[in-house]
Formats: sequence, C-alpha cells, structure tokens
Amino acid sequence: MKKIEIGLFGFGVVGEGIYEVLKAKKQLGANIKKVVIKHPNKKRNAPQELFTTDAHEILNDPSINLVVELIDDADAAFEIVKKSFAQGKSVVSANKKMIAEHHQELIALSRQHGVAFLYEASVCGSVPIIRNLEEYFDNDLLHSVQGIVNGSTNYILSQMTEEGTDYSTALKDAQACGFAENDPTLDVEGTDAAYKLSIIALHAFGKKIEAQNIICKGITALDAFDFQYAKEKNSVIKLIAKCHTNQEGTLEALTVVPTFVSKENSLGRTNNEYNGVLVESALADEQFFYGKGAGRYPTSSAVLSDISAYRYGYQYEYKKGNTHFVEDENCKGTFYISYPKTYNLNKLIFSSIEKEFTSTNRSFTIGELTFGMLKKSKIISTPGISVISLN
Amino acid sequence: MKKIEIGLFGFGVVGEGIYEVLKAKKQLGANIKKVVIKHPNKKRNAPQELFTTDAHEILNDPSINLVVELIDDADAAFEIVKKSFAQGKSVVSANKKMIAEHHQELIALSRQHGVAFLYEASVCGSVPIIRNLEEYFDNDLLHSVQGIVNGSTNYILSQMTEEGTDYSTALKDAQACGFAENDPTLDVEGTDAAYKLSIIALHAFGKKIEAQNIICKGITALDAFDFQYAKEKNSVIKLIAKCHTNQEGTLEALTVVPTFVSKENSLGRTNNEYNGVLVESALADEQFFYGKGAGRYPTSSAVLSDISAYRYGYQYEYKKGNTHFVEDENCKGTFYISYPKTYNLNKLIFSSIEKEFTSTNRSFTIGELTFGMLKKSKIISTPGISVISLN
Repeated sequence: MKKIEIGLFGFGVVGEGIYEVLKAKKQLGANIKKVVIKHPNKKRNAPQELFTTDAHEILNDPSINLVVELIDDADAAFEIVKKSFAQGKSVVSANKKMIAEHHQELIALSRQHGVAFLYEASVCGSVPIIRNLEEYFDNDLLHSVQGIVNGSTNYILSQMTEEGTDYSTALKDAQACGFAENDPTLDVEGTDAAYKLSIIALHAFGKKIEAQNIICKGITALDAFDFQYAKEKNSVIKLIAKCHTNQEGTLEALTVVPTFVSKENSLGRTNNEYNGVLVESALADEQFFYGKGAGRYPTSSAVLSDISAYRYGYQYEYKKGNTHFVEDENCKGTFYISYPKTYNLNKLIFSSIEKEFTSTNRSFTIGELTFGMLKKSKIISTPGISVISLN
Repeated sequence: MKKIEIGLFGFGVVGEGIYEVLKAKKQLGANIKKVVIKHPNKKRNAPQELFTTDAHEILNDPSINLVVELIDDADAAFEIVKKSFAQGKSVVSANKKMIAEHHQELIALSRQHGVAFLYEASVCGSVPIIRNLEEYFDNDLLHSVQGIVNGSTNYILSQMTEEGTDYSTALKDAQACGFAENDPTLDVEGTDAAYKLSIIALHAFGKKIEAQNIICKGITALDAFDFQYAKEKNSVIKLIAKCHTNQEGTLEALTVVPTFVSKENSLGRTNNEYNGVLVESALADEQFFYGKGAGRYPTSSAVLSDISAYRYGYQYEYKKGNTHFVEDENCKGTFYISYPKTYNLNKLIFSSIEKEFTSTNRSFTIGELTFGMLKKSKIISTPGISVISLN
C-alpha cells in the first residue's frame, strides 16, 4: 500500500474537510504536505506553514505523489493538472467543467505519464456513479443513464413544486440556504448538468460528446402554469440529463431538459438538493443510485474515496467500446411546449401534434419533433417558452 | 484482455440466461465450453454436446479458466468451488449460503491458488453492493449498512401493507407470482437475509460474523394488528438487515429483524420484489442503492458483471480493517413487542418501558432491551409474538 503525500490546491470547505479527516484518521495513510492558496492573509484552521501561494512548492516537490485539485477556476485547474501529470504526479479533481472540456486530452496525458487521474467528485458528489458505470456496467447491454445531477436546480424545482413558489422566489430561497451560487447561471441554464452528462457518457458508452453539443434547456423559463399541468398528471418537473441508445444500440443525442417524471418513480422522488441516477440495462432492469450531489461533505467523501482508490492503484480503464452516435437531427422526442398567449408558436416544427390547449393566460402544444428542429427553431433558447420532455 | 473459457455448473433460468447473452454478445469475449447438469434427459435450449453430468469434464479441462457455479445445493457447490480453486480456476458464484458458511476458508483457498473468487450475485442480485462496499467505502468512516436484501419477504410485507392481506394469503400470492419458493422457510425466517448480511459485514467492516450469530427474527409472526399500528404511525414494516458501528467505531451485534420504517424514506419506498441498501458514512451522509434483488435477469446481470470483472483481472482485496466487535449482550435497542391477550409477557426483560397498550385482541409493549436479553428470553423464537425494531 502506497504512502500518499498530497499537494492540495484550494482550501475552501471541501479542502478543509479533507484536511481535517486526513489529520484525524492517520490510518488512511495520506498526509497533506502543502496547500496552495490564492489569498495568504485569510485566517485558516490549519498551521500557517502548510500554506503557500507558489504552485511550484507542490509541483517541484518529488515527495508529493498526489495532487488534489479543488479550485473553482477551470482554466487554472487545467494548467495545474497538466503540470502535475508532467511531473509524474497523479491527480484527483472535482472540476467537472475542466474535465468535460479537456477530457480526452487529460486522459491521453495521464496515460502518457503513467499516472492516475480520478474524478468521482466531479459528478453527483458522493454518489459513486462514475466508478459504477466504469466497473459494473462493463458490458454492452447498457440502455440508458439518466439522472438528476444538479442539486441547485433540483432544490429550486422542488420548492416550485411543493410550495408553489415562482422561479425567482425559489432561486432566492436556494441561495439563502446555500444550495445555489450567487451567480446561478451555470446551474439554472443546465450547463453544469451538461458537463456532468458529457463525463457520464464517456464512462457509460465510451463516446465523447462535447457539452456544447448536448441539447440543453435550463429551468429559467418554467412557469407556474407548467407545474400546475404536472400536478394534474400526477407528475413533477425535473431537470433530467440523459444519454441512451436506440434499438440498434446506437447512442442518440444527449439531452439536458426539464422532463415530466411520475411522482411515484425513483427520479420523481429525488427532491431538494439530492441527486439520483437511474441506469437501465438489458438484464438488470433499473438500478438507482441516490445521495447528496454537492456540498462540503458529499464532495469531500468522493474526493477521499478517490484518494483511497489511488492508494490501491486504481485507475479508470475506459473499457467501453466507442458506441456509434446519431446526431440530433435524426432523433425524435415528444415535447410539451408552453408559451404566453401573445406568442405565435410555429406549429410546423412538429412532425405530429398530440394535444393543444389554449387559455387566456398561457397555451401549450404537445407533439413529436426532431431534436434538430428543436435546435433550429430556436425554441429552446427563447426566454419565456417552456420546453418539457415527455420521454 | 483475457479470453474466457467458462465451465458452467447448473442450467436453470440464470444459467440459461448467461448462455444466451454470451452466445449473442461475442464481444464480451467469453465462451461457455461445458455445462454440468444433474438431469441429462431434460429438454434444454442448447446443443446436446454442451452438457455433461460429469464435473471432471470441467474440472480437468485446462482450457477452462473460469467456473461459474449456479447450483442450489450449497454443500455440493462448496466441493465444486474448492476443486476449481485447486485446479487453478477462478470462480463466480451466486450461492450466498455457501459463501456465508465458508467465507474465510474460500477466501484463503482462492488466495492460496492465486485465483479470483467473485460473488456479487449472492447479495441483492443486480444491486452492486459488494463491489461498492469493497471499492467505494474504503475508509473507516462507514457508520452503517442496512437494507432490504430479500425480495420474497419484501413482496409479502408489501402485500400485507397495501392489500391488508394476512401472512398466509400474501405468502400464497408471492408463491403464485414466483416471488417465493415452495418451501419459503429460509426467506421468511430471515435466514437468507442473515447469510447476505454476513457477507455484507465482511466487505463493509472486515469482520466475519457467522449467520447463526446474527440476531434474526423473520416475518411469520407478524400480525394485521402490527400493520395497523405501523399505518397509524405513517410507517411500514420492512425486514431490515443491519450492521452498524457505535460512537466508538465498534461494530455492534448484527440484526435481521422486522423494523418500522417511515413510509417516506428510501427503504420505506422499496416495495414488492425490489431490494434497497442504505449506506451511511460520516461524510457522504446517505447513499442509497436500489434495484431488483433476485430473479433470472438481475442475477444474470450480476453474474455477467463478475465475468466481465474477471476478464479485467478484478479481485476483491478485502481491504477493510478487522473492526472491533461487541457481542449482543451489551447492545441495546428499542423494540415493539406485540402478543395475544392470553400471553403473559415478562416485562422484566425490558431495561425501560416507553409505552404499553392493551386491547381485547392483542397488546403491545415498547421499550428498550439488550439484544442479549432478547435472545435469552426466547421472545425472538416464540411463535405468534411480533418483535419489531424501532431503530
């Protein structure tokens, strides 16, 4: 069993949590030797000599074999990780943006330098979804992976469902409770979920889909009218990130869209800041993984598990075959689109229309349309227009 | 990547399922070379030359590197597994009784012969709990593992809860639906769950507790009265297998007992033939794993995952420290004990009594008592006396 000397980048709530656990639990065999921070004068609950602002004190220290990268800035993190690899150091990271944006380059570099690169904490915090997709669903019988992978939006949607609050009130409440950032854009626009889905798809189906190629609709346009409709159908609205294969085993366009989900199923019951991931495969039916997706302790837990996995020589093997992929043009879905009475929805975008409803307040149309059309029509990026999947 | 030549023992629904998948999915790189069966004249959906009644055709074939053992008879399975190890063959097994009864001997033998011994299918079918405990919760911050690990009893309890049926009706229904065996004893007495808990505890806490030392109360004594009480408290009754540490990090007596669980939590919502396992750790809070625990496809899925893991050289490492263990004498719990009006419950068994209720039909007492007292008083083995945990 390796003795681990850690160089830590970042000493926020997660970094401090890791420091405390490793200090208290000597039997984990890992020691934090140095912590690189940005602001040297901030008061911290650890000895002064542990800290430096100079990254080289970690990068050039041959006794440090593992870099744990926990900073917010994805570009700076990318430089740190590349330099760590070049110095023969393995890396544990929680930075989904950096990983989603540079996944293949980082994998190639880690292999080139023969080091481990682990990032369970980047997707769904303490829910061990990456390692399960990598290790347990290692056969080509996997049909779909879909989940609630963003705790902030799930908290907001739960509030809107349960309390009947509108979006801006629910957002403020989530911010007050620490479940949403001051600038919530990445979360509420679905971008954060798209990063995570990009990482999930590579481990599930062996295919790299860039986050910007994921069909992505956030939650900002959702209206109380939509929640009322969901309620009448015994459903709830959840922001679902999904990748799945069609009957020919071909991976279809990846989506992050608000979705009507039965109140009674596993995802429908995943409320507030919790995350849940549903894996469907030919033989096992449904497997559901549930836990806290973000925050100090869940993220620390995932980082600690990666540290521990590193100690035992674990590396992702990226064993999945590179699944064939159909671009969005040809994939179809059934969508509910709601819009103010004043908006003139172009009905020609639908291949077929199932239901229409008009009221003095708001109207909706339910029908089938291709993902290509959904993008081309710009419906998905029009403010005030709700797009909710029925699939 | 290894080429896998499999010798299969048993060709029931799971064996046949595995055969079909491996035949259809050549890319899994595994071939079933020979199948040992008991009854040669039974009609089977596979070529005649695949079958033999002579175990030596597998054991003495050096081209076979993996034995997949899927027979019911635990004693015969034990002999097969030992002989397979001795011949340098790795083994995948789903036989929880055999594993629970000979766990440490089998681990020692597999190590001695340098072969893999994998058995994810033995606990909760397709729910990957063993590998997650082994790989993901590899630190000493684990507090408890508790779960619904037996689908038959969960189906029966769900029927009794939802339909208000009595035990014998629910059992017959479960048998008719294929969710309970003709002889349901092992399931309904909790023995099957105790085997699984024994396996779980070794992977969770590194401690071998024999199934017969697990405090075990099945579901046969439960009365409609108890379900009525549960309902009033917005609870359901579930057969919960549990191992947990106390505040000092010491593993306490293992239990398989009917337990009042909130209708609203993850285990309370695990109904019918489904299994669910809740893992609590210091940092990750709750992790919940949910899926089908038995039956043709879920078991096949777990066996296939083990076959796949073998291909990549995976072995359980049994990394957990041997956690200190407190015998049941000193562990306390709060229990609800209900009994017919005619029964004279010795109240002296309780360290303290919280509630008492008497009616013309049935009475109950709720109080704290030690597990040692629970065993000594024989309450746990008295027919017609319900013992339900409130912890």
